[in-house]
Amino acid sequence: MKPPRKITALAGGVGASKLLLGLYAVMDPRDLTIIVNTGDDILLHGLKISPDLDIVTYTLAGVIDSAKGWGFRDETFHALKRLAVYGRANWFNLGDRDLATHIHRTALLGEGKSLSHAADSIRTALGVKSLILPMSDDPVPTVIESNEGALNFQEYLVKRRAEPVVRDIHFAGVDSARPAPGVLEAILDADRVIVCPSNPLISIGPILAVPGIRERLQARRENVFAVCPIVGGKSLKGPSDKMLAQLGHEPSALGVAKLYAPFTGTFIIDPADKAQTAAIAALGMKVTILPTVMKTLAHKRKLARALLALSPSS
Amino acid sequence: MKPPRKITALAGGVGASKLLLGLYAVMDPRDLTIIVNTGDDILLHGLKISPDLDIVTYTLAGVIDSAKGWGFRDETFHALKRLAVYGRANWFNLGDRDLATHIHRTALLGEGKSLSHAADSIRTALGVKSLILPMSDDPVPTVIESNEGALNFQEYLVKRRAEPVVRDIHFAGVDSARPAPGVLEAILDADRVIVCPSNPLISIGPILAVPGIRERLQARRENVFAVCPIVGGKSLKGPSDKMLAQLGHEPSALGVAKLYAPFTGTFIIDPADKAQTAAIAALGMKVTILPTVMKTLAHKRKLARALLALSPSS
Repeated sequence: MKPPRKITALAGGVGASKLLLGLYAVMDPRDLTIIVNTGDDILLHGLKISPDLDIVTYTLAGVIDSAKGWGFRDETFHALKRLAVYGRANWFNLGDRDLATHIHRTALLGEGKSLSHAADSIRTALGVKSLILPMSDDPVPTVIESNEGALNFQEYLVKRRAEPVVRDIHFAGVDSARPAPGVLEAILDADRVIVCPSNPLISIGPILAVPGIRERLQARRENVFAVCPIVGGKSLKGPSDKMLAQLGHEPSALGVAKLYAPFTGTFIIDPADKAQTAAIAALGMKVTILPTVMKTLAHKRKLARALLALSPSS
Repeated sequence: MKPPRKITALAGGVGASKLLLGLYAVMDPRDLTIIVNTGDDILLHGLKISPDLDIVTYTLAGVIDSAKGWGFRDETFHALKRLAVYGRANWFNLGDRDLATHIHRTALLGEGKSLSHAADSIRTALGVKSLILPMSDDPVPTVIESNEGALNFQEYLVKRRAEPVVRDIHFAGVDSARPAPGVLEAILDADRVIVCPSNPLISIGPILAVPGIRERLQARRENVFAVCPIVGGKSLKGPSDKMLAQLGHEPSALGVAKLYAPFTGTFIIDPADKAQTAAIAALGMKVTILPTVMKTLAHKRKLARALLALSPSS
């Protein structure tokens, strides 16, 4: 097999960034294009905040606070404390350095520039060599219908700590949203598409919901490799397991596999889930077992290298 | 004489704040209303910045960096450094805590609230007991016509360090600007109006240019007390002296007196300028000699007390 050169990854935030950091280290990062969820975006204090774009960018730039998984390392929160004095919401952490990113992005949007343009301006300023594309330049906010009513995703996740019971999820305005420039091309032109280990419902789900993206993935199905974010029935990160269960999906590798089978050729599970291999294979996907729990940079590089070494599913 | 109770002050930024701090200390601050220049306001990085409103508010709140005369004490500049990484202008100093003020104000304006509303929200949050009113809720940017072309006032003052030669000054849009709510009433209802020692051309000038304000001051002329910002031919603060000379005014107490005589009953000059007493009196103003150089809080309180003890000019 000729090794794949051009890689396109679908990504949420913290979970995806572990694998992306591995890929960035083991391949030519200029051949990597990352399509990032923007359903988590929120407007706070008049500032456009794109958490997943920033987590991916900060991670690859090496400026991330790796203990937290978000924000700048050695960050201070002086502005946020003062915003609270002014009676403004302070449940969403905004560091002083991080605020510059939001101010810059908001200013560019205010000048009529696109979110793609802002994302590119930020990643080039931070020296990231891979392309980082928002899934769409149109706002597609994830709305969590819960036992406490409709919640913005960040309100659900951060303010309410994922405690409300999820009854439904939708992506407001997604039907008329267009993929950002380069997104469809990146899927069609890639030698390999990698679905990062992110929440299938609210990280990968919004990307799939943008008209045109799911169809392009289906057309490239044999070259789509998805890394399961659930290991041993638990999320690697965040509330994926709970959300899957609350919405009637099995909170397991098999449950995720059922969601991904229509557009995925190879499904990667952790050795902890090898008992589910046959059931997943029965969905029509090749199943590959690889250690997917990435605690160290060595783990990240190892999984990335293994993913690039796999043969396509047909 | 019954001592004046309700005081209305016209103010720029740093120079005015010295006297305001004195007034705030020696009178019931709830009887003090301050009308502040907003010609210096600037939109930077999409944020609405109102330097004079903030200097006055921070000073009276006791949070100001008194060495600099602006911004918060013990301030950090992490966001500004990152804004520069993003290629944004960083010649205007924006501290991390200070940014919260600009973000809050900009967010309120974005929600359709007025600048007055924002100013009041900020001063109450910081515990300032005096009313602080912008001269107008309408933007009236000061434009400096110079040998380098038309410059925004902050570009002239901060970016170009007041080095260009000033040929003319105008306040864009001032003809259709309305005084902010409460401004005209504060002049009419005050027992005494105090013109703080601020730049006559670009701090007091813009306030006077808002339609209706100058007329109301003229109507209260005998109760208007102006403190001269030029002592011994030099500005107490900033480029007043140079600007006066470049625009053909005498850079002296007498030069300022000529500008203020139409609406001022009593003109306060420093002992250093007592030789000009007769010339100023000939303009039809009562002249009072008081030490106007306020290096310490004791000086500020002393001048404030003296101003409140003066009899009206008729």
